Amino acid sequence: MLEALKQKVLKANLDLVKNKLVLYTWGNVSEIDPATKLVVIKPSGVSYDAMKAEDMVVVDLEGNVVEGNLRPSSDTPTHIELYKAFPTLGGVTHTHSTFATAWAQAGRDIPFYGTTHADYFYGDIPCARALTEEEIEGEYEKNTGVVIIERFKKDGLDPVAVPGVLIKSHGVFAFGKDADGSVYNATVLEEVAKMAFLTEQIYPDVPRADKFMMEKHYQRKHGKNAYYGQK
Amino acid sequence: MLEALKQKVLKANLDLVKNKLVLYTWGNVSEIDPATKLVVIKPSGVSYDAMKAEDMVVVDLEGNVVEGNLRPSSDTPTHIELYKAFPTLGGVTHTHSTFATAWAQAGRDIPFYGTTHADYFYGDIPCARALTEEEIEGEYEKNTGVVIIERFKKDGLDPVAVPGVLIKSHGVFAFGKDADGSVYNATVLEEVAKMAFLTEQIYPDVPRADKFMMEKHYQRKHGKNAYYGQK
Amino acid sequence: MLEALKQKVLKANLDLVKNKLVLYTWGNVSEIDPATKLVVIKPSGVSYDAMKAEDMVVVDLEGNVVEGNLRPSSDTPTHIELYKAFPTLGGVTHTHSTFATAWAQAGRDIPFYGTTHADYFYGDIPCARALTEEEIEGEYEKNTGVVIIERFKKDGLDPVAVPGVLIKSHGVFAFGKDADGSVYNATVLEEVAKMAFLTEQIYPDVPRADKFMMEKHYQRKHGKNAYYGQK
Amino acid sequence: MLEALKQKVLKANLDLVKNKLVLYTWGNVSEIDPATKLVVIKPSGVSYDAMKAEDMVVVDLEGNVVEGNLRPSSDTPTHIELYKAFPTLGGVTHTHSTFATAWAQAGRDIPFYGTTHADYFYGDIPCARALTEEEIEGEYEKNTGVVIIERFKKDGLDPVAVPGVLIKSHGVFAFGKDADGSVYNATVLEEVAKMAFLTEQIYPDVPRADKFMMEKHYQRKHGKNAYYGQK
Repeated sequence: MLEALKQKVLKANLDLVKNKLVLYTWGNVSEIDPATKLVVIKPSGVSYDAMKAEDMVVVDLEGNVVEGNLRPSSDTPTHIELYKAFPTLGGVTHTHSTFATAWAQAGRDIPFYGTTHADYFYGDIPCARALTEEEIEGEYEKNTGVVIIERFKKDGLDPVAVPGVLIKSHGVFAFGKDADGSVYNATVLEEVAKMAFLTEQIYPDVPRADKFMMEKHYQRKHGKNAYYGQK
Repeated sequence: MLEALKQKVLKANLDLVKNKLVLYTWGNVSEIDPATKLVVIKPSGVSYDAMKAEDMVVVDLEGNVVEGNLRPSSDTPTHIELYKAFPTLGGVTHTHSTFATAWAQAGRDIPFYGTTHADYFYGDIPCARALTEEEIEGEYEKNTGVVIIERFKKDGLDPVAVPGVLIKSHGVFAFGKDADGSVYNATVLEEVAKMAFLTEQIYPDVPRADKFMMEKHYQRKHGKNAYYGQK
Repeated sequence: MLEALKQKVLKANLDLVKNKLVLYTWGNVSEIDPATKLVVIKPSGVSYDAMKAEDMVVVDLEGNVVEGNLRPSSDTPTHIELYKAFPTLGGVTHTHSTFATAWAQAGRDIPFYGTTHADYFYGDIPCARALTEEEIEGEYEKNTGVVIIERFKKDGLDPVAVPGVLIKSHGVFAFGKDADGSVYNATVLEEVAKMAFLTEQIYPDVPRADKFMMEKHYQRKHGKNAYYGQK
Repeated sequence: MLEALKQKVLKANLDLVKNKLVLYTWGNVSEIDPATKLVVIKPSGVSYDAMKAEDMVVVDLEGNVVEGNLRPSSDTPTHIELYKAFPTLGGVTHTHSTFATAWAQAGRDIPFYGTTHADYFYGDIPCARALTEEEIEGEYEKNTGVVIIERFKKDGLDPVAVPGVLIKSHGVFAFGKDADGSVYNATVLEEVAKMAFLTEQIYPDVPRADKFMMEKHYQRKHGKNAYYGQK
């Protein structure tokens, strides 16, 4: 069942290690099958070295395990919540990558400081609020999705234009049109987080870059008249 | 004698290099055999490249070399002191890993800033006080264990729930249920130390994360009803 | 056509990856053929893993594609503008390397703090001003070249003596006598940017190094009586 | 002539690359032959990839090339000055390693903050003053040795106990009983420089560590009754 997708999701998870976004088992990637609305996700707490395609777990959007011998990632309810709220998403990545997590622990949005940021993220990268005690003691992982969605709704953000988010005191979720795309954006987000940290160290009161530059860079890659790449 | 354990302790020591926690011969790992109460530990000042399982040294809890042609690590009396005070420990790792040592040199506990920390350490990672002149000129390495134990006793800390500690102006000791577990926790501690450093740079007056989040993350991995991993 | 040059430009582009100056497809290198005034440049948005010599694109100084099946780098108009303004240049490299980009995002020139800098750059490394809204909405990539040239003209800088420049809120362009030379200078610029960042962290009000030291180091490598290397 | 020593000096130079202390050709290692007082040193500006044992240059203490087809490192007069002033030295390494050079550019001694430092350096790592205009325009490289020696004399420092020094606005020289020993100390110095930088970031007004701890750590490795390692 969904064998090709399991291979793809396995590879995307292994890319987290290759791109130095995870230590040990910290992190997980999923992709949703558009036809069946089934989600393929990494199993919980299994070492990346030993992981095989058949270890990937298939779940439905109610969180039921449809296929697989292992427990799905403990973050599965967050992934599901995001797929349900944002039908344009095909893949979701969760990491505790170093610089992005430091911004999350600081509880700050990552300000737009330059074109590297603008090439992938349209505006600041938001940091969702911390969960309340009730949200944590209730359905914790589901509620992590809830606070992300709350922030996107409140600010009118489109997860295709802003394909990543921090969660206060926690880590990162990144989005893509498929598993690979979400890993790509998680990798970019970590680099943008590092650059923004350094930028503020070099010039503590640095203003954001110009909005029209953001517009230009985002549109030349993602707009109707995009001219970056080979298309 | 204890051949399997020597292999295991050798591998754990080599993992310090693989995980980039040590330069040259800085660092050592031991494990205690629960049946005989004998400790297997790395020899002193031997290059990791050349080290073999038979170079591991077997000592008893009085510090006598029971087997081995080489001197045990000069830090052996610290390991022994910890095994004697904390019977729940199976493995101990000592490193001068970069970010953790910087916190130790700053003489500060590492504050709890997020879930990466809470997944492994229940509360701040303590920094034991500097040794006095008398303690250093007396049985120095044994006294390093003494100040660690003093801090854990004073704050009522459990080395299973807080499996690592800094020593002021020195470095790190990390604990585990065996040698591998202590290397794992030493590796996590270094990453947590790096993230905490960055967090304070990004937001100098950052408060600690919420205590109920700490509770949740620690319990979902280590509590009675843990649901992380495959168990 | 220009097969040897295509090989050389391919290798120079791959060196960006080897020297850790680029993530994914961020960055590009070109070289101009002095006889024909044709420029060989990397194609746009093609993965470095898959890139072959025949994928390199040949353009003339009016920006017409003379040979090649792929679109040239979207930054091609910047390269062309630089070759037209500075006939002494043989190669141009563009990157978003981490530390240099952080200085660009901070909008600051990199001050001359030591001999590592002076061995390659005669004076501060300039940061060209941000483009205006009109410049961005017009011929954006060409205008990126325009603001670089404006800064060099204004300060009387020679791109051979100052073989690199930041662009505010963007990244780096580095110059050389050929493609390899420009990659070399881009690599040095990144290291100099990292050292300057650290220098200011260690001593926030650090003054620049002495001008006569800059003179000496630059001249012993690049002056008439240079005595560094084997010549 | 001195074939074994050339092999040894070549390997020590290559270790600079392996230990990530140099970019391109930045850095050089030499060793003095105690019997003949001849110094074997790296050639100037030759790529590490291509370097062979026979490329090493033999010079005497007057700076004459005794054997070798290539020019010796442009820093040779500094090495010679150090060997003449400090007869206990067997090897000298020069680098522009990142963190140590940042301290040099800041013009600050590296304060003694912990045992990692004390295990190798007895007290702060000194930063020699900048050269005057006259010293730079005269015999520049020789005078670099002169200001190092001036600082050691003024503070009564022993280059065996303090086997490394910064030069303001420049880089590092490290010492050892042979070429390998000087590379070892250059590697330690870089790590100590990184830790000291981080320590001050984590606690800006951090005091130095206790002098009696420095004494203890230095003596247990290097004193008459040393008990570290296998001796």
